[in-house]
Amino acid sequence: MKQQHIEDLIAFLSFASISTDAKYRKDVDDCANWLVARLERIGLSVEKFATPRHPVVVAKNVHREGRPTVMYYGHYDVQPVDPVEEWNTPPFEPTIVDGVIFARGATDNKGQLLAHVLGIEEAIAEKGDLPVNLVLLFEGEEEIGSPNLEPFLKEHHELLRCDVAAVSDTGMVGRGIPTLTYGLRGIACLEVVVRGPRVDLHSGIYGGAVRNPATGVAKLAASLHDADGRVAIEGFYDRVRPLEEWEREAWRKLGDGDKDTLNQTGVPALFGETGYSSLERRRARPTAEVNGIGGGYQGQGSKTVIPREAMLKLSFRLVPGQEPKEILDLAEAHLRKHRPEGVELELERGHSGRAYVMDAFSVFGAAAQEALRETFGGREPALIREGGSIPIIECFREVLGVDTLMLGLALPDCMCHAPNENFLLENFEAGIRLYQRLFEAIGKAGS
Amino acid sequence: MKQQHIEDLIAFLSFASISTDAKYRKDVDDCANWLVARLERIGLSVEKFATPRHPVVVAKNVHREGRPTVMYYGHYDVQPVDPVEEWNTPPFEPTIVDGVIFARGATDNKGQLLAHVLGIEEAIAEKGDLPVNLVLLFEGEEEIGSPNLEPFLKEHHELLRCDVAAVSDTGMVGRGIPTLTYGLRGIACLEVVVRGPRVDLHSGIYGGAVRNPATGVAKLAASLHDADGRVAIEGFYDRVRPLEEWEREAWRKLGDGDKDTLNQTGVPALFGETGYSSLERRRARPTAEVNGIGGGYQGQGSKTVIPREAMLKLSFRLVPGQEPKEILDLAEAHLRKHRPEGVELELERGHSGRAYVMDAFSVFGAAAQEALRETFGGREPALIREGGSIPIIECFREVLGVDTLMLGLALPDCMCHAPNENFLLENFEAGIRLYQRLFEAIGKAGS
Repeated sequence: MKQQHIEDLIAFLSFASISTDAKYRKDVDDCANWLVARLERIGLSVEKFATPRHPVVVAKNVHREGRPTVMYYGHYDVQPVDPVEEWNTPPFEPTIVDGVIFARGATDNKGQLLAHVLGIEEAIAEKGDLPVNLVLLFEGEEEIGSPNLEPFLKEHHELLRCDVAAVSDTGMVGRGIPTLTYGLRGIACLEVVVRGPRVDLHSGIYGGAVRNPATGVAKLAASLHDADGRVAIEGFYDRVRPLEEWEREAWRKLGDGDKDTLNQTGVPALFGETGYSSLERRRARPTAEVNGIGGGYQGQGSKTVIPREAMLKLSFRLVPGQEPKEILDLAEAHLRKHRPEGVELELERGHSGRAYVMDAFSVFGAAAQEALRETFGGREPALIREGGSIPIIECFREVLGVDTLMLGLALPDCMCHAPNENFLLENFEAGIRLYQRLFEAIGKAGS
Repeated sequence: MKQQHIEDLIAFLSFASISTDAKYRKDVDDCANWLVARLERIGLSVEKFATPRHPVVVAKNVHREGRPTVMYYGHYDVQPVDPVEEWNTPPFEPTIVDGVIFARGATDNKGQLLAHVLGIEEAIAEKGDLPVNLVLLFEGEEEIGSPNLEPFLKEHHELLRCDVAAVSDTGMVGRGIPTLTYGLRGIACLEVVVRGPRVDLHSGIYGGAVRNPATGVAKLAASLHDADGRVAIEGFYDRVRPLEEWEREAWRKLGDGDKDTLNQTGVPALFGETGYSSLERRRARPTAEVNGIGGGYQGQGSKTVIPREAMLKLSFRLVPGQEPKEILDLAEAHLRKHRPEGVELELERGHSGRAYVMDAFSVFGAAAQEALRETFGGREPALIREGGSIPIIECFREVLGVDTLMLGLALPDCMCHAPNENFLLENFEAGIRLYQRLFEAIGKAGS
């Protein structure tokens, strides 16, 4: 590993580029400026765009006719560091221990982003040019939901025109196992408020004669699943595209995921939709989850009230075939139908995004598989879908009309979003090689 | 109304004797000292007892053989004043508007307490003595659950020996309608925590393969009632003493309570156990209520987590016949039986107390009815039970072996525990007369 690469990594990870907290606005901007300077040093033409919040950085090599254009997307902002007392080393003083670098953003996403930038630098230094036209798109708002990226894509779609996109913000199924993610679940959020009395009531004086809103939300939440763990909303599964036989088969080789799910979560027992393995449930089956439930007294001890309202924060993970709007329509109809007598219901939709799936064996998919194979010593890549949602990927398809290759280098124990986030330097090095191979493979395929 | 009485009332209500907040400790003590001085001025022998928190004040007249002994219990501490911005006048600057005095503690309980003290003063001034032996017991911790009163009763039961107790901390069914409360519901509290994963999980990565603790508590809360509003815990009603025919009949004359319950609470529709009126449900039927439900994200917007735990704060209102311990045993068995697969259950019992009921037609009950009738221009008193719980009343029975006459002067719109608490001066005056009549009636009955 080149010393300069480590120094660059430490410099990049030292910025407290926390996008959610206005207090760090200057740190986010300083980080963007560092990135701009670093990209200019490679010889790319770089532009920094202001947005209502944090800047977008776009860089390009010289585009030539007849070469495919690849857009690489990443983000230089990071999650907050709380609870900071649980970090073994300060989150913005990157520390290397036994070949692992610890810092906020080490894996998500600065470490991966920088690896690819350094790989591009290496390729240009060695060969004078890249085999593809390159568009780099780096934002500073991914951890706050990319509020300004979709408008940016729409406004600058000419600038960002490409044949395919690539992202490294997903996981590897295990150390040393190259992984291509060809699908993601979508999401649809819904907030439910159940209102009863005008004010909190004394449960001694009124208890027994009015419906308790806390019991009301509980009944609604309890109505969402049947005893077999299936979502009980009528029509919820109607448009679900079933898992294909090849992928069930391919995933089966990776195991059922039961042991991993138990170990990683620490739950006393697994629970989910019958007929599917843990892996299938997590990656490719739709869900209804209560992300928050609340009402009445939350403090120590007891306060004998009947709360005037109670709430549910619901989110549905969607799979290919399901339309977010339609799922929310069905969910709202279900909730209205199950509204307990004696309370009122208020529903408010939150953000949503379709599931994403691409053909892992398309020209670009095959190129990605080849690049992964070459980077990881010839090992056959795992082909997976992930259960999370990256709304911007679906947006690339809608606005730019391209598929996105997800070549993530995050390991299951990288502690993304948690204290002691880390990145294996072995993966940092792999990242430096990976996109060079990817561009070669795409260059070959596209020429 | 004597000017001196109003001045005394204003002085007493001006102390910010908030018992729950250590910041007001001196105000509570100042208030106790004022009360001690006021009682001494009447010529009673007064003792102030320190407790681990706020003092207890005991006062007596000279006890003579052959007279019944009546203990009058009240409290000089008050609820906090939050949200203070909703008060029309400062809570500790008592303000009289159209025959109503506004201040924290006006009804609950300083106004009522002082009325009786002034009545005693008047009686002694007029007749030189009272027709009964009197024990006054005033505490400063009622609003925090009287933690030190039961030990005090046990330690000083000789000092407090009496034939009957009287309390004015209950309500009148309406303005001008004298009311004897002869029963209260009991209570039993239980906190439920449902635990799943070790930490909050990303609902995209793990959603579908583990039981969500928020859904888990919802299922438990939803299991507590059947569709007819009855508590669905096996054995819950087994020992419930049914309402007696005379009381259903007497209460029916006061109306079914439906309109009042709707108006006072503002609920869109009533809901409760079938076969009972609102009044019966609120006063004399047992309940299971969720006082608090919580888990996962509580802030604005969405955060797509599967919370590691969720909780329920339950309380059961009990009626005569039900034993708190047994009800909690049954509730725990029910919750364990309904525990959803894939989560663990942690149960912790809170405070509890039996329901209370006395014979409204006993010698003392009849005396109380007579006193009420005489005080309120010959109007026949309403005989009711109340749905709330005053654990100390059951304690008087257990430790001192006496019934408690509940002669409350609180009106439904007195705003106890809420902003703009108030007391009708007409009821303050009635209070001054009421205990004089009560002592006369008891003196006659007991001699």
